[in-house]
Amino acid sequence: MQELMGLYTKKEVYKRFDEMNLMELLTNSLKVQMKHIHIENNQTLLSVNDNKKVYFILKGIVAAQKDDELLYFRGKNHFIGLESILFNEESELTMTSIGRVEVIEFSKAEIVEFLMGLQEGWLYCYLISKDLNHLLVRNYFNFQAKPYERSKIMLNDLAKEFGESSDEHVLLPKKFTLAILTNYLGISYVTMRKILETLRNENFIVRSDKQKEICIHTKLF
Amino acid sequence: MQELMGLYTKKEVYKRFDEMNLMELLTNSLKVQMKHIHIENNQTLLSVNDNKKVYFILKGIVAAQKDDELLYFRGKNHFIGLESILFNEESELTMTSIGRVEVIEFSKAEIVEFLMGLQEGWLYCYLISKDLNHLLVRNYFNFQAKPYERSKIMLNDLAKEFGESSDEHVLLPKKFTLAILTNYLGISYVTMRKILETLRNENFIVRSDKQKEICIHTKLF
Repeated sequence: MQELMGLYTKKEVYKRFDEMNLMELLTNSLKVQMKHIHIENNQTLLSVNDNKKVYFILKGIVAAQKDDELLYFRGKNHFIGLESILFNEESELTMTSIGRVEVIEFSKAEIVEFLMGLQEGWLYCYLISKDLNHLLVRNYFNFQAKPYERSKIMLNDLAKEFGESSDEHVLLPKKFTLAILTNYLGISYVTMRKILETLRNENFIVRSDKQKEICIHTKLF
Repeated sequence: MQELMGLYTKKEVYKRFDEMNLMELLTNSLKVQMKHIHIENNQTLLSVNDNKKVYFILKGIVAAQKDDELLYFRGKNHFIGLESILFNEESELTMTSIGRVEVIEFSKAEIVEFLMGLQEGWLYCYLISKDLNHLLVRNYFNFQAKPYERSKIMLNDLAKEFGESSDEHVLLPKKFTLAILTNYLGISYVTMRKILETLRNENFIVRSDKQKEICIHTKLF
């Protein structure tokens, strides 16, 4: 480890031990079995009672929820299920597909065995845990803001992470329905509609004929 | 690691690698310097620009905040500053004493060097990160609840962790002033006063001559 700290800069460690690199290692390993699968909308991938698998997201969005409250989303090039690696620790969260999702499925036991065979394998898990902490602090902090501010920041974050960019705006995937957004933002339908209208008036959201479309001006990023 | 998984049960791993045990190891080490210090109320222990130290709390309460919003508290037998161990990663949080605090101060570099000299040293950091993860999910989830419910759960959590128990009730330390509680719970003074009154009417909080005292009935735990 000391050696590691000497050899690499911070940027290099984060690059070397990132999730895409782990995926590549797993793909090249003969010891780890994997299955490419498609999952339909609103299916449970992991839950308190079903946590023996790990998934790497190739396409689509997975929501982490607790008692039906949406806490965060994970997309392309992220693992889910690797946040807890010891003894198949019970996760308190349920992971559910938002729209269709394409993933690689692994057995958690096999990944953990593989990681522990690497000298610095724990670093992958440590960085995943750190990354999740960062996301949780960000969302929890945003919840201390009032609904209008919170919506602006969290919609922006979603657009950055999951949106389709064009020259002038970023379109939020339609999978983020009003029902999903109100749950995630902790805001009622009525308040949400008012806030969306305000954001359209402020030109934060682009006016469009499609009322359900949420397009955010890129210049605001 | 595989060996470790075979040798110990989950409970044993959590016990063996808990923060108090790490503190004992550090105390017995000749390589790690430590300083017993007292810190006055409202002092910054760690911040974005000052993160070369690690503290082990002997007495008192430390608050983690981001831009003046209180996100969580840490008390006795917990480390602060070990949430991030690589390259003195910048923490986005500021750690501040709530009332007087008694701590053992370490140099982070020395602790990290010590930990990396142990075969399973990373497990201490992993479990600290996991524990923080759990706390963040819990608080963030509570913020999705309405102010009344949120207050009840979060006051209960604070009482459990930091309260002084007697036979019939748990007294919340006076350091948790109304200003601190309203910030932590994300509720205005006016709403907070109303909620406290409701909780007194419901006998969740014990009625007392001291209006500022918050005593929670133990039977409700």
